[in-house]
Amino acid sequence: MAPSFRVGLVQMAMSTDPAANVERAVAGVRDAAKAGAQVVCLPELYRSPYFCQREDAALFDLAETVPGPSTEAFARAAKDSGVAVVVPIFEKRATGLYHNSAVVIDSTGELLGLYRKMHIPDDPAFYEKFYFTPGDLGFRAFDTKAGRIGTLICWDQWYPEGARLTALKGAAVLFYPTAIGWHPHEKEQHGTNQREAWRTIQRSHAIANGVYVAVVNRVGHETPPEGGPGLEFWGSSFVADPFGVVIAEAGQGEQVVVAEVDLARMEDVRRNWPFLRDRRIDAYSGIERRFLD
Amino acid sequence: MAPSFRVGLVQMAMSTDPAANVERAVAGVRDAAKAGAQVVCLPELYRSPYFCQREDAALFDLAETVPGPSTEAFARAAKDSGVAVVVPIFEKRATGLYHNSAVVIDSTGELLGLYRKMHIPDDPAFYEKFYFTPGDLGFRAFDTKAGRIGTLICWDQWYPEGARLTALKGAAVLFYPTAIGWHPHEKEQHGTNQREAWRTIQRSHAIANGVYVAVVNRVGHETPPEGGPGLEFWGSSFVADPFGVVIAEAGQGEQVVVAEVDLARMEDVRRNWPFLRDRRIDAYSGIERRFLD
Repeated sequence: MAPSFRVGLVQMAMSTDPAANVERAVAGVRDAAKAGAQVVCLPELYRSPYFCQREDAALFDLAETVPGPSTEAFARAAKDSGVAVVVPIFEKRATGLYHNSAVVIDSTGELLGLYRKMHIPDDPAFYEKFYFTPGDLGFRAFDTKAGRIGTLICWDQWYPEGARLTALKGAAVLFYPTAIGWHPHEKEQHGTNQREAWRTIQRSHAIANGVYVAVVNRVGHETPPEGGPGLEFWGSSFVADPFGVVIAEAGQGEQVVVAEVDLARMEDVRRNWPFLRDRRIDAYSGIERRFLD
Repeated sequence: MAPSFRVGLVQMAMSTDPAANVERAVAGVRDAAKAGAQVVCLPELYRSPYFCQREDAALFDLAETVPGPSTEAFARAAKDSGVAVVVPIFEKRATGLYHNSAVVIDSTGELLGLYRKMHIPDDPAFYEKFYFTPGDLGFRAFDTKAGRIGTLICWDQWYPEGARLTALKGAAVLFYPTAIGWHPHEKEQHGTNQREAWRTIQRSHAIANGVYVAVVNRVGHETPPEGGPGLEFWGSSFVADPFGVVIAEAGQGEQVVVAEVDLARMEDVRRNWPFLRDRRIDAYSGIERRFLD
Protein backbone atom coordinates (compact mmCIF):
# COMPACT_ATOMS: atom_id res chain seq x y z
CA MET A 1 0.00 0.00 0.00
CA ALA A 2 1.25 3.50 -0.78
CA PRO A 3 2.23 5.54 2.27
CA SER A 4 -0.56 7.99 1.54
CA PHE A 5 -3.43 8.58 -0.86
CA ARG A 6 -5.91 11.34 -1.54
CA VAL A 7 -9.66 11.20 -1.13
CA GLY A 8 -12.16 13.40 -2.95
CA LEU A 9 -15.67 14.33 -1.83
CA VAL A 10 -18.22 15.49 -4.39
CA GLN A 11 -20.68 17.70 -2.53
CA MET A 12 -23.57 18.34 -4.89
CA ALA A 13 -27.25 19.24 -5.28
CA MET A 14 -29.62 16.86 -7.07
CA SER A 15 -32.25 17.51 -9.71
CA THR A 16 -35.31 15.36 -10.44
CA ASP A 17 -33.63 13.94 -13.55
CA PRO A 18 -31.60 10.81 -12.71
CA ALA A 19 -29.62 10.89 -15.95
CA ALA A 20 -28.63 14.51 -15.32
CA ASN A 21 -27.57 13.66 -11.77
CA VAL A 22 -25.40 10.82 -13.03
CA GLU A 23 -23.83 13.12 -15.61
CA ARG A 24 -23.08 15.82 -13.04
CA ALA A 25 -21.71 13.27 -10.58
CA VAL A 26 -19.43 11.88 -13.28
CA ALA A 27 -18.20 15.42 -13.89
CA GLY A 28 -17.59 15.77 -10.15
CA VAL A 29 -15.54 12.60 -10.11
CA ARG A 30 -13.51 13.94 -13.01
CA ASP A 31 -12.95 17.25 -11.20
CA ALA A 32 -11.89 15.44 -8.04
CA ALA A 33 -9.47 13.30 -10.04
CA LYS A 34 -8.00 16.39 -11.68
CA ALA A 35 -7.52 17.86 -8.21
CA GLY A 36 -5.48 14.79 -7.27
CA ALA A 37 -8.05 12.52 -5.63
CA GLN A 38 -7.54 8.76 -5.91
CA VAL A 39 -10.71 7.61 -4.14
CA VAL A 40 -13.84 9.69 -4.71
CA CYS A 41 -17.14 9.50 -2.85
CA LEU A 42 -20.60 10.80 -3.84
CA PRO A 43 -23.42 11.78 -1.46
CA GLU A 44 -26.01 9.24 -0.33
CA LEU A 45 -28.68 8.42 -2.95
CA TYR A 46 -26.90 10.78 -5.35
CA ARG A 47 -29.13 9.85 -8.31
CA SER A 48 -32.33 11.58 -7.17
CA PRO A 49 -33.75 14.12 -4.78
CA TYR A 50 -34.04 12.78 -1.25
CA PHE A 51 -37.31 10.97 -1.97
CA CYS A 52 -37.73 9.67 1.59
CA GLN A 53 -39.46 12.92 2.57
CA ARG A 54 -42.68 11.00 1.87
CA GLU A 55 -43.89 7.40 1.72
CA ASP A 56 -44.98 6.61 -1.81
CA ALA A 57 -44.73 3.13 -3.30
CA ALA A 58 -44.35 4.63 -6.78
CA LEU A 59 -40.92 5.92 -5.76
CA PHE A 60 -39.51 2.40 -5.70
CA ASP A 61 -39.24 3.04 -9.45
CA LEU A 62 -36.15 5.11 -8.64
CA ALA A 63 -34.28 2.01 -7.53
CA GLU A 64 -31.72 0.28 -9.70
CA THR A 65 -29.96 -3.06 -9.73
CA VAL A 66 -26.28 -3.92 -9.25
CA PRO A 67 -24.97 -3.98 -11.92
CA GLY A 68 -27.15 -1.24 -13.34
CA PRO A 69 -27.07 2.33 -14.63
CA SER A 70 -24.91 3.69 -11.79
CA THR A 71 -22.34 0.92 -11.79
CA GLU A 72 -22.09 1.11 -15.59
CA ALA A 73 -21.57 4.86 -15.58
CA PHE A 74 -19.04 4.83 -12.76
CA ALA A 75 -17.12 1.75 -13.86
CA ARG A 76 -16.44 3.76 -17.00
CA ALA A 77 -15.82 7.04 -15.15
CA ALA A 78 -13.52 5.35 -12.64
CA LYS A 79 -11.43 3.79 -15.39
CA ASP A 80 -11.40 6.98 -17.48
CA SER A 81 -10.25 9.12 -14.58
CA GLY A 82 -8.11 6.44 -12.92
CA VAL A 83 -9.81 6.78 -9.54
CA ALA A 84 -11.78 4.48 -7.25
CA VAL A 85 -15.36 5.63 -6.62
CA VAL A 86 -17.81 5.03 -3.80
CA VAL A 87 -21.24 5.15 -5.46
CA PRO A 88 -24.25 5.25 -3.13
CA ILE A 89 -27.32 3.75 -4.77
CA PHE A 90 -30.97 2.95 -4.11
CA GLU A 91 -30.56 -0.77 -4.66
CA LYS A 92 -33.26 -3.05 -6.03
CA ARG A 93 -32.22 -6.49 -4.86
CA ALA A 94 -35.37 -8.44 -5.75
CA THR A 95 -39.02 -7.71 -6.33
CA GLY A 96 -40.15 -5.80 -3.23
CA LEU A 97 -36.69 -5.90 -1.60
CA TYR A 98 -34.67 -2.69 -1.56
CA HIS A 99 -31.58 -1.38 0.21
CA ASN A 100 -29.76 1.90 0.69
CA SER A 101 -26.34 0.78 -0.53
CA ALA A 102 -22.91 1.86 -1.69
CA VAL A 103 -20.91 0.18 -4.43
CA VAL A 104 -17.13 0.43 -4.35
CA ILE A 105 -15.56 0.54 -7.80
CA ASP A 106 -11.81 0.44 -8.23
CA SER A 107 -9.78 2.66 -10.56
CA THR A 108 -9.67 -0.24 -13.03
CA GLY A 109 -13.46 -0.15 -13.31
CA GLU A 110 -13.79 -3.38 -11.31
CA LEU A 111 -16.65 -3.67 -8.81
CA LEU A 112 -14.95 -4.43 -5.51
CA GLY A 113 -18.09 -4.93 -3.50
CA LEU A 114 -21.21 -3.63 -1.90
CA TYR A 115 -22.13 -2.18 1.47
CA ARG A 116 -25.76 -2.05 2.55
CA LYS A 117 -26.71 0.58 5.12
CA MET A 118 -27.07 -1.18 8.43
CA HIS A 119 -28.81 1.45 10.58
CA ILE A 120 -32.03 2.74 9.01
CA PRO A 121 -33.59 5.94 10.38
CA ASP A 122 -37.23 6.86 10.44
CA ASP A 123 -38.18 10.36 11.47
CA PRO A 124 -40.49 13.01 10.03
CA ALA A 125 -39.34 13.64 6.42
CA PHE A 126 -36.74 10.87 6.70
CA TYR A 127 -39.09 7.90 6.22
CA GLU A 128 -36.36 5.42 5.37
CA LYS A 129 -37.82 2.37 7.09
CA PHE A 130 -40.55 2.40 4.46
CA TYR A 131 -38.05 2.08 1.62
CA PHE A 132 -34.96 0.26 2.85
CA THR A 133 -34.45 -3.17 4.32
CA PRO A 134 -31.61 -3.00 6.86
CA GLY A 135 -28.33 -4.27 5.45
CA ASP A 136 -27.36 -7.91 5.83
CA LEU A 137 -23.73 -7.75 4.73
CA GLY A 138 -22.32 -6.41 7.99
CA PHE A 139 -19.56 -3.81 8.22
CA ARG A 140 -16.94 -3.99 5.51
CA ALA A 141 -13.62 -2.76 4.18
CA PHE A 142 -12.43 -2.84 0.57
CA ASP A 143 -8.96 -2.90 -0.94
CA THR A 144 -8.75 -0.31 -3.67
CA LYS A 145 -5.52 0.18 -5.61
CA ALA A 146 -4.99 3.36 -3.60
CA GLY A 147 -5.63 1.92 -0.15
CA ARG A 148 -8.01 0.09 2.14
CA ILE A 149 -11.26 1.95 2.71
CA GLY A 150 -14.52 1.40 4.56
CA THR A 151 -17.91 2.78 3.78
CA LEU A 152 -20.92 3.39 5.96
CA ILE A 153 -23.98 5.47 5.12
CA CYS A 154 -25.56 8.49 6.86
CA TRP A 155 -27.51 7.28 9.95
CA ASP A 156 -24.68 4.77 10.56
CA GLN A 157 -22.64 7.85 11.51
CA TRP A 158 -24.34 8.05 14.92
CA TYR A 159 -23.23 4.54 15.90
CA PRO A 160 -19.73 4.03 17.34
CA GLU A 161 -20.15 0.30 16.77
CA GLY A 162 -20.24 0.64 12.98
CA ALA A 163 -17.13 2.82 12.92
CA ARG A 164 -15.30 0.49 15.27
CA LEU A 165 -16.10 -2.66 13.30
CA THR A 166 -15.10 -1.05 10.01
CA ALA A 167 -11.84 0.21 11.50
CA LEU A 168 -11.13 -3.22 12.99
CA LYS A 169 -11.34 -4.54 9.44
CA GLY A 170 -8.34 -2.40 8.64
CA ALA A 171 -9.87 0.54 6.80
CA ALA A 172 -7.65 3.63 6.75
CA VAL A 173 -10.57 5.91 6.02
CA LEU A 174 -14.30 5.64 6.75
CA PHE A 175 -16.54 7.22 4.11
CA TYR A 176 -19.97 8.44 5.16
CA PRO A 177 -22.09 9.39 2.12
CA THR A 178 -24.89 11.37 3.73
CA ALA A 179 -28.17 13.22 3.20
CA ILE A 180 -28.70 15.33 6.30
CA GLY A 181 -30.38 18.69 6.55
CA TRP A 182 -32.46 21.01 8.60
CA HIS A 183 -36.20 21.12 8.95
CA PRO A 184 -36.60 24.83 8.14
CA HIS A 185 -38.71 25.43 11.25
CA GLU A 186 -35.98 23.97 13.48
CA LYS A 187 -33.02 25.64 11.84
CA GLU A 188 -32.91 28.87 13.79
CA GLN A 189 -33.28 27.31 17.23
CA HIS A 190 -31.50 23.97 16.79
CA GLY A 191 -29.54 24.19 13.54
CA THR A 192 -26.15 25.00 15.00
CA ASN A 193 -26.33 22.30 17.66
CA GLN A 194 -27.56 19.70 15.17
CA ARG A 195 -24.70 20.26 12.75
CA GLU A 196 -22.19 20.45 15.60
CA ALA A 197 -23.42 17.14 17.05
CA TRP A 198 -23.10 15.58 13.60
CA ARG A 199 -19.52 16.86 13.20
CA THR A 200 -18.62 15.83 16.73
CA ILE A 201 -19.82 12.24 16.57
CA GLN A 202 -17.98 11.65 13.30
CA ARG A 203 -14.78 13.32 14.45
CA SER A 204 -15.01 11.06 17.51
CA HIS A 205 -14.98 7.96 15.28
CA ALA A 206 -11.68 9.21 13.86
CA ILE A 207 -10.30 9.68 17.38
CA ALA A 208 -11.57 6.43 18.91
CA ASN A 209 -10.21 4.38 16.03
CA GLY A 210 -7.19 6.32 14.82
CA VAL A 211 -8.59 6.50 11.27
CA TYR A 212 -9.51 9.17 8.77
CA VAL A 213 -13.19 9.98 8.39
CA ALA A 214 -14.59 11.46 5.14
CA VAL A 215 -18.17 12.70 5.18
CA VAL A 216 -19.99 13.65 1.96
CA ASN A 217 -23.30 15.46 2.28
CA ARG A 218 -25.66 16.84 -0.35
CA VAL A 219 -26.67 20.52 -0.60
CA GLY A 220 -29.77 22.38 -1.63
CA HIS A 221 -33.25 23.04 -0.30
CA GLU A 222 -35.43 20.17 -1.57
CA THR A 223 -39.19 20.55 -1.34
CA PRO A 224 -41.49 17.67 -2.27
CA PRO A 225 -43.73 18.13 -5.34
CA GLU A 226 -46.87 18.27 -3.19
CA GLY A 227 -45.41 21.24 -1.32
CA GLY A 228 -44.33 21.65 2.29
CA PRO A 229 -41.26 23.08 3.97
CA GLY A 230 -38.87 20.40 2.71
CA LEU A 231 -35.32 19.92 3.91
CA GLU A 232 -32.31 22.22 3.70
CA PHE A 233 -29.33 19.94 3.22
CA TRP A 234 -26.44 21.52 5.06
CA GLY A 235 -23.44 20.43 3.01
CA SER A 236 -20.41 20.92 5.29
CA SER A 237 -18.73 17.78 3.96
CA PHE A 238 -15.41 17.28 5.71
CA VAL A 239 -12.39 15.08 6.27
CA ALA A 240 -11.05 14.50 9.81
CA ASP A 241 -7.62 13.08 10.53
CA PRO A 242 -6.98 10.23 13.04
CA PHE A 243 -6.93 12.71 15.92
CA GLY A 244 -10.24 14.27 14.93
CA VAL A 245 -8.70 17.39 13.39
CA VAL A 246 -10.76 18.64 10.44
CA ILE A 247 -8.23 18.91 7.59
CA ALA A 248 -10.61 19.83 4.76
CA GLU A 249 -14.14 21.14 4.76
CA ALA A 250 -16.81 22.36 2.35
CA GLY A 251 -19.32 25.14 2.79
CA GLN A 252 -23.00 24.93 1.88
CA GLY A 253 -22.69 25.09 -1.90
CA GLU A 254 -21.60 22.58 -4.52
CA GLN A 255 -17.92 21.84 -4.02
CA VAL A 256 -15.24 19.22 -4.49
CA VAL A 257 -13.00 18.64 -1.46
CA VAL A 258 -9.71 16.77 -1.63
CA ALA A 259 -7.60 15.68 1.37
CA GLU A 260 -4.73 13.33 2.06
CA VAL A 261 -4.96 10.05 3.98
CA ASP A 262 -1.46 9.79 5.42
CA LEU A 263 -0.67 6.32 6.75
CA ALA A 264 2.40 7.62 8.58
CA ARG A 265 0.15 10.05 10.46
CA MET A 266 -2.13 7.13 11.38
CA GLU A 267 0.84 5.13 12.65
CA ASP A 268 2.05 8.09 14.68
CA VAL A 269 -1.34 8.78 16.27
CA ARG A 270 -1.96 5.13 17.09
CA ARG A 271 1.52 4.75 18.63
CA ASN A 272 1.10 7.77 20.84
CA TRP A 273 -2.55 7.28 21.80
CA PRO A 274 -2.72 3.46 21.66
CA PHE A 275 -6.43 2.96 22.21
CA LEU A 276 -6.62 -0.26 20.21
CA ARG A 277 -4.07 -1.88 22.56
CA ASP A 278 -6.23 -1.59 25.66
CA ARG A 279 -9.74 -2.51 24.55
CA ARG A 280 -11.49 -4.78 27.09
CA ILE A 281 -12.78 -7.31 24.62
CA ASP A 282 -13.52 -9.65 27.52
CA ALA A 283 -16.05 -7.18 28.91
CA TYR A 284 -18.07 -5.86 25.95
CA SER A 285 -20.64 -8.61 25.52
CA GLY A 286 -23.54 -6.38 26.65
CA ILE A 287 -23.06 -4.35 23.45
CA GLU A 288 -25.05 -7.03 21.68
CA ARG A 289 -28.08 -6.45 23.88
CA ARG A 290 -30.81 -3.85 23.38
CA PHE A 291 -30.71 -2.47 26.92
CA LEU A 292 -29.23 -3.81 30.13
CA ASP A 293 -32.34 -3.72 32.28
CA MET B 1 -36.70 9.64 40.32
CA ALA B 2 -36.82 13.43 40.39
CA PRO B 3 -37.26 15.08 36.96
CA SER B 4 -33.83 16.65 37.30
CA PHE B 5 -30.85 16.80 39.62
CA ARG B 6 -27.65 18.78 39.83
CA VAL B 7 -24.13 17.45 39.59
CA GLY B 8 -21.03 19.11 41.03
CA LEU B 9 -17.44 18.73 39.85
CA VAL B 10 -14.58 19.53 42.23
CA GLN B 11 -11.64 20.52 40.04
CA MET B 12 -8.61 20.70 42.35
CA ALA B 13 -4.82 20.52 42.67
CA MET B 14 -3.21 17.94 44.95
CA SER B 15 -0.43 18.28 47.51
CA THR B 16 1.86 15.50 48.71
CA ASP B 17 -0.08 15.28 52.00
CA PRO B 18 -2.98 12.79 51.69
CA ALA B 19 -4.75 14.08 54.81
CA ALA B 20 -4.64 17.62 53.47
CA ASN B 21 -6.00 16.48 50.09
CA VAL B 22 -8.88 14.70 51.83
CA GLU B 23 -9.62 17.80 53.85
CA ARG B 24 -9.60 20.07 50.81
CA ALA B 25 -11.73 17.61 48.82
CA VAL B 26 -14.25 17.51 51.67
CA ALA B 27 -14.35 21.30 51.57
CA GLY B 28 -14.92 21.10 47.81
CA VAL B 29 -17.84 18.74 48.30
CA ARG B 30 -19.28 21.14 50.85
CA ASP B 31 -18.90 24.06 48.42
CA ALA B 32 -20.55 22.09 45.63
CA ALA B 33 -23.44 21.17 47.93
CA LYS B 34 -23.87 24.84 48.90
CA ALA B 35 -23.96 25.68 45.19
CA GLY B 36 -26.87 23.24 44.80
CA ALA B 37 -25.14 20.03 43.69
CA GLN B 38 -26.74 16.72 44.68
CA VAL B 39 -24.11 14.36 43.26
CA VAL B 40 -20.49 15.48 43.51
CA CYS B 41 -17.44 13.97 41.83
CA LEU B 42 -13.73 14.35 42.66
CA PRO B 43 -10.82 13.97 40.22
CA GLU B 44 -9.14 10.60 39.68
CA LEU B 45 -6.75 9.53 42.50
CA TYR B 46 -7.68 12.75 44.33
CA ARG B 47 -5.74 11.78 47.51
CA SER B 48 -2.20 12.22 46.14
CA PRO B 49 -0.16 13.72 43.35
CA TYR B 50 -0.37 11.70 40.14
CA PHE B 51 2.24 9.18 41.30
CA CYS B 52 2.14 7.14 38.06
CA GLN B 53 4.73 9.48 36.53
CA ARG B 54 7.25 6.86 37.68
CA GLU B 55 7.34 3.16 38.57
CA ASP B 56 8.24 2.78 42.23
CA ALA B 57 7.01 -0.12 44.34
CA ALA B 58 7.19 2.06 47.47
CA LEU B 59 4.28 4.09 46.11
CA PHE B 60 1.88 1.23 46.67
CA ASP B 61 1.90 2.61 50.23
CA LEU B 62 -0.43 5.33 48.94
CA ALA B 63 -3.19 2.77 48.36
CA GLU B 64 -6.09 2.32 50.75
CA THR B 65 -8.76 -0.30 51.38
CA VAL B 66 -12.53 -0.08 50.96
CA PRO B 67 -13.71 0.75 53.54
CA GLY B 68 -10.76 2.95 54.50
CA PRO B 69 -9.78 6.57 55.05
CA SER B 70 -11.50 7.94 51.95
CA THR B 71 -14.77 6.11 52.40
CA GLU B 72 -14.86 7.08 56.09
CA ALA B 73 -14.22 10.75 55.34
CA PHE B 74 -16.73 10.93 52.50
CA ALA B 75 -19.45 8.84 54.11
CA ARG B 76 -19.42 11.51 56.79
CA ALA B 77 -19.08 14.41 54.33
CA ALA B 78 -21.86 13.04 52.12
CA LYS B 79 -24.23 12.74 55.05
CA ASP B 80 -23.25 16.12 56.50
CA SER B 81 -23.79 17.91 53.20
CA GLY B 82 -26.68 15.73 52.04
CA VAL B 83 -25.05 14.90 48.67
CA ALA B 84 -23.94 11.72 46.95
CA VAL B 85 -20.18 11.61 46.21
CA VAL B 86 -18.11 9.77 43.61
CA VAL B 87 -14.75 9.18 45.33
CA PRO B 88 -11.92 7.92 43.12
CA ILE B 89 -9.39 5.93 45.12
CA PHE B 90 -6.16 3.97 44.73
CA GLU B 91 -7.65 0.71 45.98
CA LYS B 92 -5.67 -1.96 47.84
CA ARG B 93 -7.77 -5.08 47.33
CA ALA B 94 -5.31 -7.67 48.66
CA THR B 95 -1.58 -7.97 49.21
CA GLY B 96 -0.04 -7.12 45.85
CA LEU B 97 -3.40 -6.49 44.17
CA TYR B 98 -4.37 -2.90 43.43
CA HIS B 99 -6.98 -1.09 41.36
CA ASN B 100 -7.77 2.41 40.19
CA SER B 101 -11.32 2.64 41.50
CA ALA B 102 -14.24 4.88 42.34
CA VAL B 103 -16.58 4.43 45.28
CA VAL B 104 -20.11 5.77 45.03
CA ILE B 105 -21.47 7.02 48.35
CA ASP B 106 -25.08 8.11 48.69
CA SER B 107 -26.28 11.25 50.46
CA THR B 108 -27.17 9.02 53.44
CA GLY B 109 -23.52 8.05 53.84
CA GLU B 110 -24.23 4.54 52.49
CA LEU B 111 -21.66 2.94 50.18
CA LEU B 112 -23.62 2.11 47.03
CA GLY B 113 -20.83 0.33 45.24
CA LEU B 114 -17.49 0.28 43.55
CA TYR B 115 -16.28 0.73 39.99
CA ARG B 116 -12.81 -0.45 39.02
CA LYS B 117 -11.20 1.26 36.02
CA MET B 118 -11.48 -1.13 33.11
CA HIS B 119 -9.08 0.41 30.55
CA ILE B 120 -5.57 0.95 31.95
CA PRO B 121 -3.17 3.21 30.03
CA ASP B 122 0.57 2.97 29.90
CA ASP B 123 2.50 5.77 28.26
CA PRO B 124 5.53 7.84 29.22
CA ALA B 125 4.73 9.46 32.61
CA PHE B 126 1.41 7.57 32.78
CA TYR B 127 2.77 4.19 33.93
CA GLU B 128 -0.53 2.85 35.13
CA LYS B 129 -0.12 -0.76 34.07
CA PHE B 130 2.59 -1.05 36.74
CA TYR B 131 0.18 -0.06 39.49
CA PHE B 132 -3.35 -1.06 38.54
CA THR B 133 -4.89 -4.42 37.74
CA PRO B 134 -7.63 -3.89 35.13
CA GLY B 135 -11.10 -3.82 36.68
CA ASP B 136 -13.13 -7.02 36.98
CA LEU B 137 -16.50 -5.59 37.91
CA GLY B 138 -17.55 -4.52 34.41
CA PHE B 139 -19.41 -1.32 33.59
CA ARG B 140 -21.88 -0.19 36.21
CA ALA B 141 -24.65 2.20 37.16
CA PHE B 142 -25.71 3.17 40.69
CA ASP B 143 -29.00 4.44 42.08
CA THR B 144 -28.34 7.46 44.25
CA LYS B 145 -31.23 9.24 45.97
CA ALA B 146 -30.84 11.98 43.37
CA GLY B 147 -30.74 9.79 40.27
CA ARG B 148 -29.10 6.91 38.45
CA ILE B 149 -25.46 7.58 37.63
CA GLY B 150 -22.57 5.76 36.03
CA THR B 151 -18.90 6.19 36.62
CA LEU B 152 -15.91 5.43 34.48
CA ILE B 153 -12.35 6.65 34.99
CA CYS B 154 -9.99 8.66 32.74
CA TRP B 155 -8.57 6.35 30.00
CA ASP B 156 -12.04 4.74 29.81
CA GLN B 157 -13.09 8.04 28.22
CA TRP B 158 -11.52 7.06 24.90
CA TYR B 159 -13.64 3.91 24.56
CA PRO B 160 -17.17 4.21 23.15
CA GLU B 161 -17.87 0.70 24.44
CA GLY B 162 -17.57 1.74 28.10
CA ALA B 163 -19.87 4.71 27.65
CA ARG B 164 -22.40 2.61 25.73
CA LEU B 165 -22.52 -0.19 28.29
CA THR B 166 -22.90 2.24 31.18
CA ALA B 167 -25.67 4.11 29.37
CA LEU B 168 -27.41 0.83 28.54
CA LYS B 169 -27.50 0.19 32.30
CA GLY B 170 -29.72 3.24 32.57
CA ALA B 171 -27.31 5.90 33.87
CA ALA B 172 -28.53 9.46 33.24
CA VAL B 173 -25.03 10.86 33.61
CA LEU B 174 -21.58 9.37 33.06
CA PHE B 175 -18.90 10.68 35.41
CA TYR B 176 -15.29 10.60 34.26
CA PRO B 177 -12.90 11.43 37.12
CA THR B 178 -9.69 12.16 35.26
CA ALA B 179 -5.98 13.01 35.51
CA ILE B 180 -4.94 14.23 32.09
CA GLY B 181 -2.32 16.80 31.26
CA TRP B 182 0.30 17.97 28.85
CA HIS B 183 3.88 16.89 28.59
CA PRO B 184 5.39 20.41 28.69
CA HIS B 185 7.49 19.74 25.59
CA GLU B 186 4.38 18.74 23.61
CA LYS B 187 2.08 21.50 24.80
CA GLU B 188 2.90 24.18 22.27
CA GLN B 189 2.70 21.95 19.20
CA HIS B 190 0.02 19.45 20.21
CA GLY B 191 -1.70 20.87 23.29
CA THR B 192 -4.73 22.37 21.62
CA ASN B 193 -5.45 19.28 19.53
CA GLN B 194 -4.99 16.96 22.51
CA ARG B 195 -7.47 18.79 24.69
CA GLU B 196 -9.88 19.18 21.79
CA ALA B 197 -9.74 15.43 21.03
CA TRP B 198 -10.42 14.75 24.71
CA ARG B 199 -13.43 17.06 24.75
CA THR B 200 -14.71 15.70 21.45
CA ILE B 201 -14.63 12.02 22.33
CA GLN B 202 -16.47 12.62 25.59
CA ARG B 203 -19.06 14.92 24.04
CA SER B 204 -19.58 12.15 21.49
CA HIS B 205 -20.49 9.69 24.26
CA ALA B 206 -23.22 12.11 25.32
CA ILE B 207 -24.50 12.29 21.74
CA ALA B 208 -24.30 8.58 20.91
CA ASN B 209 -26.13 7.61 24.08
CA GLY B 210 -28.39 10.57 24.81
CA VAL B 211 -26.90 11.00 28.30
CA TYR B 212 -25.16 13.71 30.26
CA VAL B 213 -21.39 13.44 30.60
CA ALA B 214 -19.53 15.02 33.53
CA VAL B 215 -15.74 15.12 33.38
CA VAL B 216 -13.64 16.08 36.42
CA ASN B 217 -9.94 16.72 35.85
CA ARG B 218 -7.20 17.83 38.24
CA VAL B 219 -5.15 21.00 37.79
CA GLY B 220 -1.58 22.03 38.57
CA HIS B 221 1.90 21.34 37.22
CA GLU B 222 3.15 18.26 39.08
CA THR B 223 6.85 17.45 38.89
CA PRO B 224 8.22 14.26 40.43
CA PRO B 225 10.60 14.59 43.44
CA GLU B 226 13.60 13.40 41.38
CA GLY B 227 13.03 16.25 38.93
CA GLY B 228 11.99 16.25 35.29
CA PRO B 229 9.44 18.19 33.26
CA GLY B 230 6.41 16.63 34.95
CA LEU B 231 2.83 17.02 33.75
CA GLU B 232 0.64 20.09 33.42
CA PHE B 233 -2.88 18.94 34.24
CA TRP B 234 -5.21 20.92 32.05
CA GLY B 235 -8.35 21.18 34.19
CA SER B 236 -11.14 22.11 31.74
CA SER B 237 -13.66 19.94 33.59
CA PHE B 238 -17.04 20.12 31.89
CA VAL B 239 -20.58 18.84 31.66
CA ALA B 240 -22.13 18.02 28.27
CA ASP B 241 -25.85 17.58 27.73
CA PRO B 242 -27.39 14.63 25.79
CA PHE B 243 -26.76 16.42 22.51
CA GLY B 244 -23.11 17.07 23.28
CA VAL B 245 -23.61 20.75 24.11
CA VAL B 246 -21.19 21.88 26.85
CA ILE B 247 -23.45 23.42 29.50
CA ALA B 248 -20.82 24.11 32.18
CA GLU B 249 -17.06 24.30 32.04
CA ALA B 250 -14.08 25.10 34.25
CA GLY B 251 -10.86 26.88 33.37
CA GLN B 252 -7.39 25.75 34.39
CA GLY B 253 -7.53 26.71 38.08
CA GLU B 254 -9.27 25.17 41.10
CA GLN B 255 -13.00 25.49 40.63
CA VAL B 256 -16.32 23.94 41.52
CA VAL B 257 -18.71 23.49 38.60
CA VAL B 258 -22.41 22.75 39.01
CA ALA B 259 -24.82 21.77 36.23
CA GLU B 260 -28.27 20.29 35.88
CA VAL B 261 -29.10 16.79 34.64
CA ASP B 262 -32.56 17.30 33.18
CA LEU B 263 -34.38 14.05 32.51
CA ALA B 264 -36.98 15.82 30.38
CA ARG B 265 -34.17 17.06 28.13
CA MET B 266 -32.89 13.47 27.87
CA GLU B 267 -36.34 12.25 26.92
CA ASP B 268 -36.68 15.00 24.32
CA VAL B 269 -33.27 14.32 22.74
CA ARG B 270 -33.80 10.57 22.65
CA ARG B 271 -37.26 10.95 21.10
CA ASN B 272 -36.04 13.25 18.36
CA TRP B 273 -32.73 11.49 17.63
CA PRO B 274 -33.70 7.91 18.51
CA PHE B 275 -30.33 6.23 18.20
CA LEU B 276 -31.05 3.54 20.78
CA ARG B 277 -34.03 2.35 18.71
CA ASP B 278 -31.98 1.38 15.67
CA ARG B 279 -28.87 -0.32 17.05
CA ARG B 280 -27.96 -3.44 15.03
CA ILE B 281 -27.39 -5.73 17.99
CA ASP B 282 -27.48 -8.69 15.62
CA ALA B 283 -24.35 -7.39 13.85
CA TYR B 284 -21.96 -6.20 16.56
CA SER B 285 -20.30 -9.47 17.56
CA GLY B 286 -16.90 -8.45 16.14
CA ILE B 287 -16.67 -5.78 18.86
CA GLU B 288 -15.51 -8.55 21.17
CA ARG B 289 -12.50 -9.32 19.01
CA ARG B 290 -9.13 -7.60 19.06
CA PHE B 291 -8.91 -6.98 15.32
CA LEU B 292 -10.82 -8.39 12.39
CA ASP B 293 -7.88 -9.63 10.35
